[in-house]
Amino acid sequence: MTEKKPFEALSVETLPKRLGGTAALTTRIGSDAAQWKVREVGDGNLNLVFIVEGDKGAAVVKQALPYVRLVGDSWPLPLKRSFFEYHALTRQERRAPGSVPAIYHFDEDQALIVMEFLSPHIILRRALIDGRELPKIARDIGLFMAHTLFRGSDLSMVTKDRKADLALFADNVELCDITENLVFSDPYFDAKMNRHTNPQLDGLVAELRADRDLKVEAQRLKHLFAANAETMLHGDLHSGSIMVTDTETRMIDPEFAFYGPIAFDVGMLLANFWMAFFSQRGHEEKGSRDSMRAYLLRVTAETWSVFRAEFSHLWRTERNGMLYQKSLFEDQGDLLGSEQAFDHMLSSIWTDLLGFAGIEVHRRILGLAHNADFETIADQDLRARCEAKALRFGRHIAVNRRQIHSIDEVNKLAALIEQESRI
Amino acid sequence: MTEKKPFEALSVETLPKRLGGTAALTTRIGSDAAQWKVREVGDGNLNLVFIVEGDKGAAVVKQALPYVRLVGDSWPLPLKRSFFEYHALTRQERRAPGSVPAIYHFDEDQALIVMEFLSPHIILRRALIDGRELPKIARDIGLFMAHTLFRGSDLSMVTKDRKADLALFADNVELCDITENLVFSDPYFDAKMNRHTNPQLDGLVAELRADRDLKVEAQRLKHLFAANAETMLHGDLHSGSIMVTDTETRMIDPEFAFYGPIAFDVGMLLANFWMAFFSQRGHEEKGSRDSMRAYLLRVTAETWSVFRAEFSHLWRTERNGMLYQKSLFEDQGDLLGSEQAFDHMLSSIWTDLLGFAGIEVHRRILGLAHNADFETIADQDLRARCEAKALRFGRHIAVNRRQIHSIDEVNKLAALIEQESRI
Repeated sequence: MTEKKPFEALSVETLPKRLGGTAALTTRIGSDAAQWKVREVGDGNLNLVFIVEGDKGAAVVKQALPYVRLVGDSWPLPLKRSFFEYHALTRQERRAPGSVPAIYHFDEDQALIVMEFLSPHIILRRALIDGRELPKIARDIGLFMAHTLFRGSDLSMVTKDRKADLALFADNVELCDITENLVFSDPYFDAKMNRHTNPQLDGLVAELRADRDLKVEAQRLKHLFAANAETMLHGDLHSGSIMVTDTETRMIDPEFAFYGPIAFDVGMLLANFWMAFFSQRGHEEKGSRDSMRAYLLRVTAETWSVFRAEFSHLWRTERNGMLYQKSLFEDQGDLLGSEQAFDHMLSSIWTDLLGFAGIEVHRRILGLAHNADFETIADQDLRARCEAKALRFGRHIAVNRRQIHSIDEVNKLAALIEQESRI
Repeated sequence: MTEKKPFEALSVETLPKRLGGTAALTTRIGSDAAQWKVREVGDGNLNLVFIVEGDKGAAVVKQALPYVRLVGDSWPLPLKRSFFEYHALTRQERRAPGSVPAIYHFDEDQALIVMEFLSPHIILRRALIDGRELPKIARDIGLFMAHTLFRGSDLSMVTKDRKADLALFADNVELCDITENLVFSDPYFDAKMNRHTNPQLDGLVAELRADRDLKVEAQRLKHLFAANAETMLHGDLHSGSIMVTDTETRMIDPEFAFYGPIAFDVGMLLANFWMAFFSQRGHEEKGSRDSMRAYLLRVTAETWSVFRAEFSHLWRTERNGMLYQKSLFEDQGDLLGSEQAFDHMLSSIWTDLLGFAGIEVHRRILGLAHNADFETIADQDLRARCEAKALRFGRHIAVNRRQIHSIDEVNKLAALIEQESRI
């Protein structure tokens, strides 16, 4: 039995010494730890991330800190999020092979995961800000969502296993708490950690915070998020959690994983495409982004279409769980009964994802954790104009989600708002 | 440390010897166990229930068996349901003081709970079959549901505590499995353990099993039951789980407890009142049941009205959880925002409870676990006529639940079906 060592944060200096004896690492990158090159590259809000290169190769070492990196040690956050990230990654790999980084090593006490170094992958958000039209993301992400969200639910799993897993992830309560507060509530009142581009957005922010229908919808969505333990979610599936090349797409950072509503992952993801769309105007100094804007709307449409088609395919071919059992439909010769149930389910996912998407847009502009799409627009007036359009778009789709029936309608709305100078 | 003894079922003969040293029992009923009078009275489907009387008083000893009593040891069922029953009872007592039997002793290894002997209480179902118009049930049960369902949810609880509790009860998977299969699925196809009054109901049963809209609704409700972990449910709140006198009402047997949708307990309960209503015709040999029928419809209306009023009261006075936070509404001077959210929530509960109620009616007539309301009607033709009306009523409210807006409409429908000889 190895002795349990107290948690200690790694540094560029201590990493080779502390992990130099870890076979999972030495066999992959080279056994002479003294020769390792170590860089700390964590640009996220929570953790340390090191790239370690040796003579044979490279790997990533991700370590949780006992607090929120973005805020500091005044905001403690438990190390066990690393445990949930590890378990989420193993499940995602099983349900959607090849979609996440390979895991080489996990040390629960040190809250540390050693994983595949993805290269030359870059963060999708960065690529979209740079105006890169990646050809495969819609298909890859649509499939990832369909596979993980379907196969983590009672449509597919043995219910006893899903409930055991649900109980396991129910302990990821501090990270869920972040979402519950920072995404669903704080943006809608004058909460301490909020910030927004001011004074340009002050008027609109006041308007949104006085918007009763919007607040009620946001709270109903929070209720759904907290109570509807439908499937294992990634929990933080935005363009900053996806790494891409022209030919490959990988989802990373599922430390917010827990059992929640299918629509949440899909809605958050699409929201980030729509925000990328509204932020393009702020990145036109080197030329028009018309083509990029058209591309982004195509990507949202294709992502939803791929998700829908694959979910439907799995519905027909892998629906072996306890929900909508074949014994009641197909086995009775009632194929259309099964299709009717599918239409109901997809219709709910659609309606709810629009809500989650609208809320996600708001929290990225009104709350604590902003995103680089807007933040990198140096001209504050220009940034505020982009953000205002996104805010109005988010409000519209969240509040009117039951009256919007296709992704095409949403994209037309986005295009309308984008072109409308009076907004 | 006391030694852990392997589980052994109690009997009338062994009980005094085995529990004679249990202070929780001896102090209440008398210390001379040799003088105890022991009766086994379990008439439920699952467990042993003993009434133990001594010179000082009486108590109930309830013990789980490692199988389903109704079916026998061919259907194993884990003893841990006793653990969940114990934990549910303690929570219900905290949330709705005085509504459940007092607990004197719990032995997890022996799956045994010693609790208050309720006397002269009788099972509510029995009272309703006998035509007794109990004056307090609507109010008592309405309050019990409002208190337990509100206070067990994120409307009231600290979310961290609710999630820990959710994880605890997620292990009650075998009892949930019974509901998932026996309530939501088996009645709608030719499942092994089904039975119905035949041949009288054969035609209608075939009709219902070919009813696509009904099957789809039943499966959507199953999805909601399995995924929507909103609050701690009783999980089996029918008239056989309630003991009454003219002045007192107590809920018993919450071994099916788990975190599920608020509407489930309410729907199952009301369904049992409506079944009592439709079964009255079968119990008229000793006189008209017109008054009893009117009473039962009044009880459903009052139960719902009390529940709604109390839930609304708690919404205004105890909404201190993370859902629909006051910081977004009342604290902003937006009282109507909070009322708007309440209306949405109650509207969902209403719509869903009609679905659960319709399904509960069906499984009691088509599935494995029938209820005495109909079963005690000896004349098979008469029983089938009562059951047919209930089945058609259940189908109507389950499938049309989104178009029915008040309990009055449902009761008028029930009265119409009851009077209609052509049905």
